[in-house]
Amino acid sequence: MKAEFLIDYCHQGDWAPQGGHRQSPIDIQTSQIENNDTLATIEVNFSESTATFLNNGQNLQLLAAGQACFNHRLFQFVQVHFHADSEHRLNGKSFPLEGHFLFQAPNGQLGVMGVFYEIGVFNPDFEQVLNQYEQEKGEGIFSASELIPKDKSYYHYIGSLTTPPLTEGVEWYVLKNTVEVSDEQIQRFISIHGKNNRDCQCMNERKVLSYNE
Amino acid sequence: MKAEFLIDYCHQGDWAPQGGHRQSPIDIQTSQIENNDTLATIEVNFSESTATFLNNGQNLQLLAAGQACFNHRLFQFVQVHFHADSEHRLNGKSFPLEGHFLFQAPNGQLGVMGVFYEIGVFNPDFEQVLNQYEQEKGEGIFSASELIPKDKSYYHYIGSLTTPPLTEGVEWYVLKNTVEVSDEQIQRFISIHGKNNRDCQCMNERKVLSYNE
Repeated sequence: MKAEFLIDYCHQGDWAPQGGHRQSPIDIQTSQIENNDTLATIEVNFSESTATFLNNGQNLQLLAAGQACFNHRLFQFVQVHFHADSEHRLNGKSFPLEGHFLFQAPNGQLGVMGVFYEIGVFNPDFEQVLNQYEQEKGEGIFSASELIPKDKSYYHYIGSLTTPPLTEGVEWYVLKNTVEVSDEQIQRFISIHGKNNRDCQCMNERKVLSYNE
Repeated sequence: MKAEFLIDYCHQGDWAPQGGHRQSPIDIQTSQIENNDTLATIEVNFSESTATFLNNGQNLQLLAAGQACFNHRLFQFVQVHFHADSEHRLNGKSFPLEGHFLFQAPNGQLGVMGVFYEIGVFNPDFEQVLNQYEQEKGEGIFSASELIPKDKSYYHYIGSLTTPPLTEGVEWYVLKNTVEVSDEQIQRFISIHGKNNRDCQCMNERKVLSYNE
């Protein structure tokens, strides 16, 4: 049988990469998650050294030394930034704030640990973050110990960056346990920053895996 | 300082995912690779059971049960197909044939093991593949033992599918060691199939990692 060429190799320039089918954030539906024991416990470590703060007019990024082990591989910490309201949702529910801890593996792979914040007690580590918004760039203290829950059980799926260039193929690890910040801290964040949450995107053919510590 | 909104959250529909910056295949330049010891040895296993052959008019796919361990994680075998000439190049050099062994992890992540074939002795396992091109669909014997080199040292980078939809975020493991097929077998493949190799794509800001067993 002579093959018919459905793909035209003489006009490869006309081929266009498909994008927009694996975007973030998403609304995580816990009725449709799949437990997966081959995933691994997240290990995160930040050094005690000084952090660099970079306010690009859009968001404040906190750059520091650190690393994480996601799904059996080592990633280096790149930066953390925050979104209000939360970008991910859980069964349709949004949270007032979400932190995105961005890491990168040696092959360039991006992995983001997402943390939901709820209104509760004053959070001294988040206060240090807020204080950095006063300046465009600088150095200061960054402590993540009160920004990340101790139990790092998570939902996992493959999505994208949530701001342009919206690059796909990003590994998401959205933590199940939340951290508290005060209502005043949330209001202070919004007054500085405005709301900056992208709408939830279609799941398409993806699935969300679940891992408990 | 009031943040200026560089990203317009009121018109998110105007945001377009960037694509085309991490495409495959590539020309692997060995002068620019980076050795990485955190990568792991590839383990591949195929079951002895019967395989399904599916000729979509464009390419013959061989579907069988199997699994691989890529970079510390388990992937399930999906299918293998072949390209002539090779799609990847090595320091500008192409090979007459390249096999793409496609696997998928539980989170949907795709991983492809690429194998370069050189002209040499008759390969009985590749002959079984060629014999399947006579039919549109069916079942038959699939043995991978002579299709994959024993030493699976590899080049690793993140790219894309090489045919539409050209989905990005695909993990590539291009083996350093080649396998022989006869000149007659290459000619038979081309007479059935025509040439079906996509042009090499820009590296952009990616890097290629190297791992030796």
